[in-house]
Amino acid sequence: MTKKAIILLSGGLDSVTVLALAKQQGYDIYALSFDYGQKHNSELTSAREIAQDYQVAEHKVINLGLGEIGGSALTDDALKVPVTHQEGIPVTYVPARNTVFLSFALGWAEVLGAHDIFIGVNAVDYSGYPDCRPEFIKAFQVLANLATKAGVEGHEIKIHAPLIHMSKGEIIQQGTKLHVNYAQTVSCYAASSDGLACGECDACRLRQQGFEQAEVSDPTQYQ
Amino acid sequence: MTKKAIILLSGGLDSVTVLALAKQQGYDIYALSFDYGQKHNSELTSAREIAQDYQVAEHKVINLGLGEIGGSALTDDALKVPVTHQEGIPVTYVPARNTVFLSFALGWAEVLGAHDIFIGVNAVDYSGYPDCRPEFIKAFQVLANLATKAGVEGHEIKIHAPLIHMSKGEIIQQGTKLHVNYAQTVSCYAASSDGLACGECDACRLRQQGFEQAEVSDPTQYQ
Repeated sequence: MTKKAIILLSGGLDSVTVLALAKQQGYDIYALSFDYGQKHNSELTSAREIAQDYQVAEHKVINLGLGEIGGSALTDDALKVPVTHQEGIPVTYVPARNTVFLSFALGWAEVLGAHDIFIGVNAVDYSGYPDCRPEFIKAFQVLANLATKAGVEGHEIKIHAPLIHMSKGEIIQQGTKLHVNYAQTVSCYAASSDGLACGECDACRLRQQGFEQAEVSDPTQYQ
Repeated sequence: MTKKAIILLSGGLDSVTVLALAKQQGYDIYALSFDYGQKHNSELTSAREIAQDYQVAEHKVINLGLGEIGGSALTDDALKVPVTHQEGIPVTYVPARNTVFLSFALGWAEVLGAHDIFIGVNAVDYSGYPDCRPEFIKAFQVLANLATKAGVEGHEIKIHAPLIHMSKGEIIQQGTKLHVNYAQTVSCYAASSDGLACGECDACRLRQQGFEQAEVSDPTQYQ
């Protein structure tokens, strides 16, 4: 029997690379995306296209009232996505986002009887978000095994973060080897509704540097 | 300045007791409820009334597509709420529910600058749910401090589970001392839309036993 894996699929560059990696490792893919009130929701269009191209076993897009708690430029109309780099934890940080996303993945894993969850977090070019660090992922894995029926019954749940120690350039090189179509991905926090990137925000800046480092031509379409 | 606390408020007997305890301890109360597709959503009517009676600083009811992942008799129309007690982890268990709820509480705590989160889980009369155990709460607290800006900046986030070692009878005794109006609470998994209890499900059974143990008359209205 093929092993099932849940992949958190935002529609960005990192998550599609993770999907391609998990597919290469022979998993049956269950892709999970969230409509959480993000302004750049063209990433969901990308996520749907990617899920279809990779012929995933199932793709769920869950509605989440994450924007209702506010506090992030990604969901709150009163806060603008900055175009200059900020030191420290930036205003685009969505409070507890990865904790919420992984919790849902965990719930779905229980329902499916899956023991593997993949997330494309990255501790090198990570914009300073606390929930992208290796110690966060480790702590979530401990929690996952205490929180669930599977854990109680001794089937270890594993949180895979295969990109965590890679630079953006290394991620793109890895994905390019796996024939990932990066033209299909949206990284920009201020992407237009048809997925055109602003070229100025932190996410665009990291992405551009990544293609330069990887010496791969950048297929991103800008506004 | 008064300290802010997030209270997970289901509208059941346990969560209102926790709210009363936190209020007594002098916290400003930020109550958080979820509309997650539970069949017994009359508990949300109770939660709203309770929040109003306790004059909380704010009450949020977040829409969550938790039912979309299925797997529980509480959200899935294909699964019936059982009326007899089941050994092991029962079909009313909602996969990763407390992990998801605490994750949202954590996000809101970050936005508000609150460092205290209260949850009414109970390890004694807990229906066999893995995410009601003390080790789960401890693991979430570790995670919370790694996942957040507050944690990174050294403001410890604390997960309070004041009922965790109490029996249902002790919880009711405690709440009765604090003048909790238990008539207002809904515990039943199969409650009617106007909040009348079935008197037969696991939650009803535990609640009835609790009032007997506490030697407090049971104000529950049955169908």
